[in-house]
Amino acid sequence: MDNSHSKTPFLIGVAGGTASGKSTVCQKIMEQLGQADVSVSLRKVVTIAQDSFYKQLSPDESKKAAKGQYDFDHPNALDIDLVVQTLQDVLEGRKTEVPVYDYISNSRIEGQFVTVYPADVVLFEGILAFYFPQVRDMFHMKLFVDTDPDTRLARRVVRDVQERGRDLDTVLNQYMKFVKPAFEEFCLPTKKFADVIIPRGADNTVAISLIVQHIKDLLTTRNLSHEIDIQQEKFSSKKNVKELLSRPH
Amino acid sequence: MDNSHSKTPFLIGVAGGTASGKSTVCQKIMEQLGQADVSVSLRKVVTIAQDSFYKQLSPDESKKAAKGQYDFDHPNALDIDLVVQTLQDVLEGRKTEVPVYDYISNSRIEGQFVTVYPADVVLFEGILAFYFPQVRDMFHMKLFVDTDPDTRLARRVVRDVQERGRDLDTVLNQYMKFVKPAFEEFCLPTKKFADVIIPRGADNTVAISLIVQHIKDLLTTRNLSHEIDIQQEKFSSKKNVKELLSRPH
Amino acid sequence: MDNSHSKTPFLIGVAGGTASGKSTVCQKIMEQLGQADVSVSLRKVVTIAQDSFYKQLSPDESKKAAKGQYDFDHPNALDIDLVVQTLQDVLEGRKTEVPVYDYISNSRIEGQFVTVYPADVVLFEGILAFYFPQVRDMFHMKLFVDTDPDTRLARRVVRDVQERGRDLDTVLNQYMKFVKPAFEEFCLPTKKFADVIIPRGADNTVAISLIVQHIKDLLTTRNLSHEIDIQQEKFSSKKNVKELLSRPH
Amino acid sequence: MDNSHSKTPFLIGVAGGTASGKSTVCQKIMEQLGQADVSVSLRKVVTIAQDSFYKQLSPDESKKAAKGQYDFDHPNALDIDLVVQTLQDVLEGRKTEVPVYDYISNSRIEGQFVTVYPADVVLFEGILAFYFPQVRDMFHMKLFVDTDPDTRLARRVVRDVQERGRDLDTVLNQYMKFVKPAFEEFCLPTKKFADVIIPRGADNTVAISLIVQHIKDLLTTRNLSHEIDIQQEKFSSKKNVKELLSRPH
Repeated sequence: MDNSHSKTPFLIGVAGGTASGKSTVCQKIMEQLGQADVSVSLRKVVTIAQDSFYKQLSPDESKKAAKGQYDFDHPNALDIDLVVQTLQDVLEGRKTEVPVYDYISNSRIEGQFVTVYPADVVLFEGILAFYFPQVRDMFHMKLFVDTDPDTRLARRVVRDVQERGRDLDTVLNQYMKFVKPAFEEFCLPTKKFADVIIPRGADNTVAISLIVQHIKDLLTTRNLSHEIDIQQEKFSSKKNVKELLSRPH
Repeated sequence: MDNSHSKTPFLIGVAGGTASGKSTVCQKIMEQLGQADVSVSLRKVVTIAQDSFYKQLSPDESKKAAKGQYDFDHPNALDIDLVVQTLQDVLEGRKTEVPVYDYISNSRIEGQFVTVYPADVVLFEGILAFYFPQVRDMFHMKLFVDTDPDTRLARRVVRDVQERGRDLDTVLNQYMKFVKPAFEEFCLPTKKFADVIIPRGADNTVAISLIVQHIKDLLTTRNLSHEIDIQQEKFSSKKNVKELLSRPH
Repeated sequence: MDNSHSKTPFLIGVAGGTASGKSTVCQKIMEQLGQADVSVSLRKVVTIAQDSFYKQLSPDESKKAAKGQYDFDHPNALDIDLVVQTLQDVLEGRKTEVPVYDYISNSRIEGQFVTVYPADVVLFEGILAFYFPQVRDMFHMKLFVDTDPDTRLARRVVRDVQERGRDLDTVLNQYMKFVKPAFEEFCLPTKKFADVIIPRGADNTVAISLIVQHIKDLLTTRNLSHEIDIQQEKFSSKKNVKELLSRPH
Repeated sequence: MDNSHSKTPFLIGVAGGTASGKSTVCQKIMEQLGQADVSVSLRKVVTIAQDSFYKQLSPDESKKAAKGQYDFDHPNALDIDLVVQTLQDVLEGRKTEVPVYDYISNSRIEGQFVTVYPADVVLFEGILAFYFPQVRDMFHMKLFVDTDPDTRLARRVVRDVQERGRDLDTVLNQYMKFVKPAFEEFCLPTKKFADVIIPRGADNTVAISLIVQHIKDLLTTRNLSHEIDIQQEKFSSKKNVKELLSRPH
């Protein structure tokens, strides 16, 4: 039996402004789930980052990017077709490949990909996770990590200046010129689509454990029903492949 | 063994503005939990409303109230000592009594109480649930039902005019004079204490089922450890089965 | 001399949500300016309302409108070309005609127009005053009347139910279905373009008198330079320059 | 004639968060007014900063301050009695002295004061300008400089790190620990008292010139009526001093 085709993964969208704590929230969810006593072959949780889907830059755009004058926060900076294709593969249980982006050269590393294997729960996180309707409508649950703008800027400054060695002036200019306006125009208005708003981000242990609990529960139910399926298959062992693929769970 | 003292109930605070959907959220949580196949004697979920704790009004205040000139939304309108005492009883697993308030006469109905039995999960909902630190700090989880002010007013108008037969003018005047300023001064600033923000209120089925899931999980764990306790008791003593089953949780 | 072509009027845009007090602010400005002892032929202040520019509805749209199912708050409901043409006429000092809209039949009254004569100061007020860049960029000053959503709904309910005799249910439904979403999507994001934000609307006498003062000052300067023009024309004949410059206006 | 006693100055309060542009707005107002052709003896515009009124720190508090652990943004850090006394002197046309604060030693410089002479227009600017009712109620006009929190933090970081040579970490920690919470608790809720909200701060030339216009107008009216007073005095030159002092303008 081709297990990977037998169930639709639970797809969670995680949106929020820069440095709101989106990826840390995802990471904590993955960590806390990894502690569960469930074998890896039966349940997988995967996080996909919107940042992997930046368009290839033209030589001109690359020059701009090098000078901090390319707007990476604008919807146009994303290869949205690839995002949609990838999430469709994910939803249909197909193995898929996500490009690897090189933040130094601002280009995809040719021939290098991260393979996303069929999983039970897939988190997709990004500033614009809820911006494109065709992406937004794929999510079974939508989380918005809601952190105050000044708190987010404080974090971003620390990250970019202290951890990535960037120049304070450049960081602030880029924030004011691109990051802030794009957040206000493209991200903030999508907060209304959220099912749950997680204030404060990664520090919010109560909210994170709520989500973890929910995912655990999903996984248990799935595995349970999956085992029942397997049993049923054993009983009626002559089902043809087509029948299996068309099963509606 | 006095079992009733053996576990602290999980206390959830639910705050939000008037007509945000606080009590409907609580009601849906209770409904969805009631459907679970767990015997009543082993698990109880109770909702307590802040509205039960209005102070007794003096004759002068009663007159004001009759004219819609008493500010029921101000912290001073609450018998906060009684709220604290009640929640402490709840937390310590003691049976407690909550007064019954008569919205017509604006006074407690003498000698009438609702008994709150020891429970595993207790929801306390009210506009000022997070306002008093001594109350706020008792909650194990804090939910804020976040509904837009105009949506809330629209709901309140419908409720008060169409369901309670009040005069539109009176409803709007009271809202503008007391309800709105009190919300902005005493309720909204407590949103920052929330662990989870539930946008849109009772329509948000995804968020509600998240909370329900969490409570279910809590209950399972508690009952599990409780059963282990029972087993241990069987080993270490001679209590008869009837005694065990009749215990109030 | 053709006075009407000799100066560009000062064009003020006034935006804000429904029932924020936009038109009352404009009316108060006009009233307070009308008290000045200046002859009508030398200075004119005119208010133009966005509501005059609704598109003609098709028979199908008319049916929808009659059932409260047509979205008058959407940018598409406006004849934006006519708005632009009208404001261009105004800016270029040309007499122009504004259609008259019949709120009963939801159609322009054929052959009926209000004439807008060349003026020194023109106020254009509407929910979407700052939405279309080609309109927004015409304004010399941009005011945003900022009133809380629940206050605005309370006012609109009073106006529509008590003054216009509409049904409470219909008013609330239309507000929730069309008015509120359109405000959030098309009006609120334009607040950032405002030069001055007027909180509370028409009650804000201090802000209104500020604007009035400003307009008065504009008018004085304009009339002064205008008089100088006139004098200079005469002088092509007689008066000496010194006399003209030393006049205390 | 003692001109200084003869009229109540127009007192403008200017509130807003840290680095919102309060003092730059005040400075630009003063600059633009200084260009007017009015002699200094007849009209004065003065700005007083809330920062001049910090309490003297105890040795313990000084130690805390040196480590960035003293909360200068809390209302308790202000010598509010001195603020009130100073503004009362100002309103009553009395010459008054404002202490000079030394930001290095965190103490008032003993014996050093700035003299505030009677003026026609006095601007008082500070985060807490509208916090204390007894101060708030003194203002004839209340301006709130409204700049986004992240924009304000960006400016503060530049100012403190690049202009004052402070450490980035210290600046961010102090902001998150003291500045931000105090803004949200004590400053933001006073925005509702504003007559005019000035978005974006000092860049907002349109709003600033509006205020300048208004002040100019005030000054003209005052000087005009003042000149009339002088004329009247000349006519009835035997008025006794008491009568003059009690004149109600």
